[in-house]
Amino acid sequence: MTAAARSAPDAVTVLSGGIGGAKLVLGMFSLLPPDRLTVIANCGDDLTLFGLRICPDADTLLYTLADEVHPEQGWGVAGDTFRALKRVQQLGGEAWFNLGDVDLGLHLYRTELLRQGTGLAEVTRRVAQSLGVTCRVLPMCEQSVTTRLETDDGPLDLQDYLVRRRAQPEVRRVTYGGASEAVPGPGVLDSIAGSRLIVVAPSNPFISIGPILAVPGVRGALQASRAVRVAVTPLVAGRALKGPTDKMMAEMGLPVSPLTVAQHYKDFLDVFVLDSQDEALRPRIESLGMRCLAAPTVMGDLPAKQALARAVLGLADLAGAAR
Amino acid sequence: MTAAARSAPDAVTVLSGGIGGAKLVLGMFSLLPPDRLTVIANCGDDLTLFGLRICPDADTLLYTLADEVHPEQGWGVAGDTFRALKRVQQLGGEAWFNLGDVDLGLHLYRTELLRQGTGLAEVTRRVAQSLGVTCRVLPMCEQSVTTRLETDDGPLDLQDYLVRRRAQPEVRRVTYGGASEAVPGPGVLDSIAGSRLIVVAPSNPFISIGPILAVPGVRGALQASRAVRVAVTPLVAGRALKGPTDKMMAEMGLPVSPLTVAQHYKDFLDVFVLDSQDEALRPRIESLGMRCLAAPTVMGDLPAKQALARAVLGLADLAGAAR
Repeated sequence: MTAAARSAPDAVTVLSGGIGGAKLVLGMFSLLPPDRLTVIANCGDDLTLFGLRICPDADTLLYTLADEVHPEQGWGVAGDTFRALKRVQQLGGEAWFNLGDVDLGLHLYRTELLRQGTGLAEVTRRVAQSLGVTCRVLPMCEQSVTTRLETDDGPLDLQDYLVRRRAQPEVRRVTYGGASEAVPGPGVLDSIAGSRLIVVAPSNPFISIGPILAVPGVRGALQASRAVRVAVTPLVAGRALKGPTDKMMAEMGLPVSPLTVAQHYKDFLDVFVLDSQDEALRPRIESLGMRCLAAPTVMGDLPAKQALARAVLGLADLAGAAR
Repeated sequence: MTAAARSAPDAVTVLSGGIGGAKLVLGMFSLLPPDRLTVIANCGDDLTLFGLRICPDADTLLYTLADEVHPEQGWGVAGDTFRALKRVQQLGGEAWFNLGDVDLGLHLYRTELLRQGTGLAEVTRRVAQSLGVTCRVLPMCEQSVTTRLETDDGPLDLQDYLVRRRAQPEVRRVTYGGASEAVPGPGVLDSIAGSRLIVVAPSNPFISIGPILAVPGVRGALQASRAVRVAVTPLVAGRALKGPTDKMMAEMGLPVSPLTVAQHYKDFLDVFVLDSQDEALRPRIESLGMRCLAAPTVMGDLPAKQALARAVLGLADLAGAAR
């Protein structure tokens, strides 16, 4: 029996990047029976530091769902200390990437299992289980895909751009190195094929969702799926709530508008969720050949996350399946 | 100009393992001008955990000389926390080797530099400099040498035996895997050749000093040296003050006696330092063809370390060179 066949008829798959996506996923996780929810995590910004494999987006999802995440930052573990990294800094090493001590424990564990030959999907499953995350979090693939930005400062890996350079260089183009050799991770295609609702989280379409779509087979599976396929805007009133989505769009010569995002997913999307503040854009979204829902998409607290999750689940008549 | 030519005429080289050796080295470091003192550190118990290169003996030396070492343990950093390792444990990973958070910072830094192609000697030099350790600490070699114990539980790497199995299995034989392909680390042979005094620290002759002597060229350099060559007993009144030296000797069918240690170094040694409690053994030591000094070798506090250091330095008329 394949995973697809095992999927409940009201299964939900979310494609997600880090912070913004994790918020919506948390809302859904708090509403759905956990065995109905699968999250496909972006791995295009994974990096190796000090020999350790770090998966920023998957970790942000796991920490968020485990109720461990630093509430203001939206990433990292609440109350974490930085003693190891301070020592690295004292020794003159590179300490631009924030690695808390507890967070490091996860990277140590993952690195060791990967060295022993365990796949990233299985490692992620074990971490989720240990942290009490009862829904499925699947890495988009187990191969290395490197999101790289061509900038006026030269080519930069994503975390280098985002963290070390604080997203300051101008971005010309985004590429996904290694994507053409990647294969969807275990469970990814089955989950897409077996879902009744597929949600593209409010994450950056180029650096968070783009790498997932660049894995051969994923975009085709989304196109072929009979699920209701929904994307939630990462832009509200012309701005990204978090991160450089708006800045990158402008620098790449694209209109800073939810329309650009909807266009990006047009080949597989059924419904685009606009923020209520952007309701005026509805006719233009609909002219792309998809339905459009306007809803409050700013997820300040858990009730706001749940409200948006409910609205999205309602698009596939799944609001009733929620707890 | 070679390092040997640069060496002061009253230069001192110490061959050292971890805790016991570090105590005597600290005594010497507190007495000698730091540019006169070189420590050659055992690397035979280096290990890779979580992809990180860990050098237990060199690190113990560095932490001791930097006045950072945990005073009761004799290894690790005083006041260190174990948040990363606790997370590893929570996730179900192997957490038998104690890695504090600050300690981890050093392993992260070292691993990253090694990955970038920096040699272990240069990494160790930079760490020493950052920690304010002004004497030279040289790894015995830059290649991997693995001290392995043949035990009644099968072959065990050293830290596995010492830490994970608490030195409980019976030891039949000690081997130094990879030693025949190793080359003395940068500065090692020059330091031996350019010293007026060479000291074998009170460390385990099989697992701490043995690996250093197994690096091709080191033993020959000691034999050829015109320095006064001194070894300090790691056994006092038939027991090891720290670690399983006595137990291992008995299990390998060797008399648990300073005589066995002196025998081990007989081919290059000029003076053996017995503990005062074992003064009765002096004639038998001397019958091996070396001088013998009896002195208090139990180094409880800094004055005791300095007293032993002074006694050892006096053997080459270097006590006067001390500050």
